[in-house]
Amino acid sequence: MRNKYICLDIGGTKVLGVIFDENKNIVYRIKKKTKAEEGSGKIEEKIIKVVDELITTSGIQINDIVAIGAGAPGVINENTGEIIYTPNLPWRNYNIRSVIESKFQVPFYVGNDVKVGVLGEWKFGAGVGRRNIIGIFVGTGVGGGIIVENRLFTGSYHAAGELGHIVLNTEGPYCNCGQRGCLEAYAGKIGMTKEIRAEVARGRKTILKDLMDPNMTLLKSKTMKKAVDENDELAIEIMDRAIYYLAAGAGSFVNIFDPDMVILGGGVIEAMGDYIMPRFKKQIRRFALPDVLQNTELVQSALGDDAVVYGALALVTNKSF
Amino acid sequence: MRNKYICLDIGGTKVLGVIFDENKNIVYRIKKKTKAEEGSGKIEEKIIKVVDELITTSGIQINDIVAIGAGAPGVINENTGEIIYTPNLPWRNYNIRSVIESKFQVPFYVGNDVKVGVLGEWKFGAGVGRRNIIGIFVGTGVGGGIIVENRLFTGSYHAAGELGHIVLNTEGPYCNCGQRGCLEAYAGKIGMTKEIRAEVARGRKTILKDLMDPNMTLLKSKTMKKAVDENDELAIEIMDRAIYYLAAGAGSFVNIFDPDMVILGGGVIEAMGDYIMPRFKKQIRRFALPDVLQNTELVQSALGDDAVVYGALALVTNKSF
Repeated sequence: MRNKYICLDIGGTKVLGVIFDENKNIVYRIKKKTKAEEGSGKIEEKIIKVVDELITTSGIQINDIVAIGAGAPGVINENTGEIIYTPNLPWRNYNIRSVIESKFQVPFYVGNDVKVGVLGEWKFGAGVGRRNIIGIFVGTGVGGGIIVENRLFTGSYHAAGELGHIVLNTEGPYCNCGQRGCLEAYAGKIGMTKEIRAEVARGRKTILKDLMDPNMTLLKSKTMKKAVDENDELAIEIMDRAIYYLAAGAGSFVNIFDPDMVILGGGVIEAMGDYIMPRFKKQIRRFALPDVLQNTELVQSALGDDAVVYGALALVTNKSF
Repeated sequence: MRNKYICLDIGGTKVLGVIFDENKNIVYRIKKKTKAEEGSGKIEEKIIKVVDELITTSGIQINDIVAIGAGAPGVINENTGEIIYTPNLPWRNYNIRSVIESKFQVPFYVGNDVKVGVLGEWKFGAGVGRRNIIGIFVGTGVGGGIIVENRLFTGSYHAAGELGHIVLNTEGPYCNCGQRGCLEAYAGKIGMTKEIRAEVARGRKTILKDLMDPNMTLLKSKTMKKAVDENDELAIEIMDRAIYYLAAGAGSFVNIFDPDMVILGGGVIEAMGDYIMPRFKKQIRRFALPDVLQNTELVQSALGDDAVVYGALALVTNKSF
């Protein structure tokens, strides 16, 4: 009976695949590691493999599947299923929908992963019933999603919501995008890692040096949490700086959008929400207009790592783009 | 015959009133100075006086008027006609609609003046046919209006669009709102005036000192233009700083909204558009993501001082809120 959904979170380093039943419960899940450098063909194969594996190991038939939904990184035309471009994966003007649909003969919908994650929080998580939501997802970088008047806002050319690239300090640290002082340069793990490396190079003592890999490649959220829990001075300084700029960015978004709700999510928030949220709520008062902020709820993501697959479910069942 | 519209731009220091005929042409106009310190009762009287004067001097009857529309400063509930609060005028929770409707027995619609101005640019000016527009109006302060998916976006509690209060430098100059480093603190005339005063106090030589009133109360746009035209070093420095931060703010808005168009308007832009626009277009490339910016047109307001009355016309004829 065709009443189930396959939903995917296609990340730079992993693919999460789940099957939802007709009651919107996750009845099966699988996680696969991917490698960006394997190229677009290989990644497409991985997606197909995950769908194949979901079907063969779960005992659920492809004929049971109503549709497949996915969130993927980059700027995506959600109408055509074309990945227009993506910063960390080798895709450009790549129509992933047609590939998946021709393989499985099932409708396939795809959107930007962070936007889809915010869609998930809106339809099934922290933001149910809200009309205007700002979602900020903090991980390797800082991504965003915007619900405006009960719709996911995608902008004129599918690129809206780059909340990590609000400029908070025109003379600030260099960001991966080429600008300076973006929110992402302060609060994303790449930005935090750069600052840790710079401080260590200056001779600063920190247990992060021992906790991270020898090349200090990329900070893990759990590593940061451990160092902060152990009162490491540098770790606290860098995390508090990230929170300060998260608050400055979110405060600006409150002033711009007058949202019902700001949702913080992503790996860093999942790992350290207890540390971040109270500090964030205090700091944002420095930046948001009080009359606007009083009507804005500030919350942590409710769906955690499942936000994107729930959003993919919303995508295929509501076609809310 | 009931086929004309009265439209008002209710400012802190002036009221502009016009009559539009059935072809949406301005057939009569009048301008009145107002004083904020005269209190809300007096301002309400001034509005009534302007409407009265429009009617008596134009020879057009109140029975010819379909509706009255207006833009006014502050946070306004455009559904109820209530001015929720306003920074520079002594109004709070003041229902101006009921006062005007009971006086003239004609429907009255009112919205925030900058939002209404952007509505005017969208329906009758630079932004005709665009789907997503960011309007930044630079005057005493910096206001904003946002068109999202063919609708004026007003936010959850009618406060959206405070584009002047995006934080561009967390340690920057103090803004009237109590924050630091807002766009308004750099690019609004109050912010520029403060910086001029500070530089003069430091002994900086500038012809602005002679051109402004002895107390250097508030810079006029024309004064700034004159000083820049005469190559005054301080004037150029402060104007270029304003443009730089306008570009940083607008660049962030491009990254956030992926708009079709950014419109700059307001008194400062009207007076100095030839100086500002080319520099603004150059600077914004530092801050906006290139892939997003390439799809965004950057233009100057087409309606100038009439943007708000045209927006008020759009308000009463389209009820576009």
